[in-house]
Amino acid sequence: MSDVGHTVRSYDDELRALSDRISDMGRLAEKQVLGAVSALVNHDAELAAQVIADDHEMDRMERDAEAAAVDVIARRGPVAIDLREIMASVRIAGILERVGDHAKNIAKRAAAIAPEQPPIRISSSLQSIGRLASSQLNLVLRAYTDRDAAVALEVWRNDGEIDRRYTSLFRELLTYMMEDSRSITPSTHVLFCAKNIERVGDHATNIAEIVHFLVTGDPPEGERPKADESSSAG
Amino acid sequence: MSDVGHTVRSYDDELRALSDRISDMGRLAEKQVLGAVSALVNHDAELAAQVIADDHEMDRMERDAEAAAVDVIARRGPVAIDLREIMASVRIAGILERVGDHAKNIAKRAAAIAPEQPPIRISSSLQSIGRLASSQLNLVLRAYTDRDAAVALEVWRNDGEIDRRYTSLFRELLTYMMEDSRSITPSTHVLFCAKNIERVGDHATNIAEIVHFLVTGDPPEGERPKADESSSAG
Repeated sequence: MSDVGHTVRSYDDELRALSDRISDMGRLAEKQVLGAVSALVNHDAELAAQVIADDHEMDRMERDAEAAAVDVIARRGPVAIDLREIMASVRIAGILERVGDHAKNIAKRAAAIAPEQPPIRISSSLQSIGRLASSQLNLVLRAYTDRDAAVALEVWRNDGEIDRRYTSLFRELLTYMMEDSRSITPSTHVLFCAKNIERVGDHATNIAEIVHFLVTGDPPEGERPKADESSSAG
Repeated sequence: MSDVGHTVRSYDDELRALSDRISDMGRLAEKQVLGAVSALVNHDAELAAQVIADDHEMDRMERDAEAAAVDVIARRGPVAIDLREIMASVRIAGILERVGDHAKNIAKRAAAIAPEQPPIRISSSLQSIGRLASSQLNLVLRAYTDRDAAVALEVWRNDGEIDRRYTSLFRELLTYMMEDSRSITPSTHVLFCAKNIERVGDHATNIAEIVHFLVTGDPPEGERPKADESSSAG
């Protein structure tokens, strides 16, 4: 919101309503990621099915957010900061919809490998990286709601930790696959799930960049902390 | 463009310039995908490095396209079809930037596994699915340029073929990994590359949906042909 406020009260309300849509999407995205990882780790096919079903809600919310944004643009002809706000909300809605897709992908694999037991060490690493990714989502949505560039920067800096854990998980899984060929199929699915979680972290970082730019007019300073070394791992 | 044309000539020019930016991005995206797959299949580390370097250009083009769109919105206050056109261009630019990311990811793995020789059968399947994905990109950009809903629908329907080939490649790779544990590390990288190519196909389909909606006002009819069964494969 701009500092001076708008003379037409309902325009402010419209902008706030748009912002609220994004927060709602953020909450659902966080819930979907936690649900998907929980379904995977606990072999919970029912929860997996629920996450898959709820992804339609996420898609609907994105379409509605974009339609609302277009409607405000068409009727109000916003400029400067308001237009930047609206475009940011459209971009964040698009990113959250993709986070939802990653959760759905994890849930699909959870449903597929439900009867097989992955090693418990992996479960614990998966849960911990999943919690980290969803807490990044939570934090960046708070940064968005409060228009807080410092919190956005914190999210942006945290991403390296998710990437490091992903790389370590990747190496661990390859080791299991080499030790026991029966673990190859389930491990491959877990590998894709881990990659999906790592991507959720990337998306949180992308949102952090948008929020930082929205508040300060500048991108976060310095090179993005990129620590996923798995492309060259092994 | 609307049928009646605009009285202010430079407005039309601006809309056309925005559309041209998308076409330029599309051409680069297609080149990046072909380059990445070629680098992977031919163990060409130099080409891989080139694709990785060129991704910055893709990112820059997306930022410029969005800035140009925001500029047109702020100055012209477009409504109805023009606003729909502009929002579509922003969304397509975002998708093409992600296609570029997939190409970069493939190129990074190509650089990592360059010294190792994957079985030639996989190379041929990879090349063929890569060509299919980039021809889908080419076709959907043509649909966009010509505002041709029928061509968009063709792209949308073709995606099932990419998914089928991906699933078959996925199963083939798992078999190799089980037969020979030394192939696990390179096969895992190839698996991720194949997944990246499959995602490029999805993105072409997403663009097809946007173009179809832009031209007809409706999404393509029927359920999207989704044939990636690899989540439950093996």
